[in-house]
Amino acid sequence: MSADNQQGRLDMKKLSAGYIVGFVDGEGSFHVAVYQDPRMKVGVKFIPEFHVSQRESSRAVLDAFVPFLGCGYVKANHAKNPRDMTYVFVVRDREDLLKKIIPFFQKHLLQTEKANDFSLFANIVTKMANGHHLNKAGAKRLLKIAYRMNQNGRYRKKFHHI
Amino acid sequence: MSADNQQGRLDMKKLSAGYIVGFVDGEGSFHVAVYQDPRMKVGVKFIPEFHVSQRESSRAVLDAFVPFLGCGYVKANHAKNPRDMTYVFVVRDREDLLKKIIPFFQKHLLQTEKANDFSLFANIVTKMANGHHLNKAGAKRLLKIAYRMNQNGRYRKKFHHI
Repeated sequence: MSADNQQGRLDMKKLSAGYIVGFVDGEGSFHVAVYQDPRMKVGVKFIPEFHVSQRESSRAVLDAFVPFLGCGYVKANHAKNPRDMTYVFVVRDREDLLKKIIPFFQKHLLQTEKANDFSLFANIVTKMANGHHLNKAGAKRLLKIAYRMNQNGRYRKKFHHI
Repeated sequence: MSADNQQGRLDMKKLSAGYIVGFVDGEGSFHVAVYQDPRMKVGVKFIPEFHVSQRESSRAVLDAFVPFLGCGYVKANHAKNPRDMTYVFVVRDREDLLKKIIPFFQKHLLQTEKANDFSLFANIVTKMANGHHLNKAGAKRLLKIAYRMNQNGRYRKKFHHI
């Protein structure tokens, strides 16, 4: 696809703050991945991420999120069957989360249970900006908060060793 | 829950046309169910339906759709495991589809591939309002259109006998 067509495709998308909030309430995810990491003094590493997935045929709306929110990128998630390939809009950069994503959803309120995930997510990212993840007591508190996210971590592997 | 609380819960939801379109782009479905029906001269019955599902914890946003869109109702979809119970906002009434749902999404454009489903859905509902489903040639045309919906009917049972 040429740069011109790419631009044309973006121009066709009519996004508004309301649209983004509605779409994210349906399809978005505020998630804090927790990895064991022996290099870290506290033993675990936190990776907060905001993402929104779509099938390939609706990739254009994700592309339009990048200029609208002023951050993030779109990447492919390959699947065994090519027709199951999805695309995902991702924001992991902590400055972008702190200065763009969190203020956006503080101004434009989510209306589903996802509002709760967002609130815990914002709490974790803010605490990380203040270095709470770098000492054991802080990391334990962050872990507790992370476990309350996404339906109380229904699908999450739990770390009991810290 | 008392009527007062119910009202309070609705009032807390801040919906806008943009929010609804974004939410429906993510979670909504325009679908035309096709059933074999020997009582029908043409052998099949078409049931167009617009619906949006959510887990129980986010039921309130669906409740707020009813007054905002001025039609539809919310019903429970029971599951084996009670925590998998979902709620679904449903519009099946043909007048409501014709006079409320279709004009709403013609004014506030969907931005994903769902725009295509909606356009085929609106086509079918409009043709049904003109009685096209009541003769064999018309029903065949409706069936062809219905098969192009929802990823070309990837999950749909096909009828080859009419």
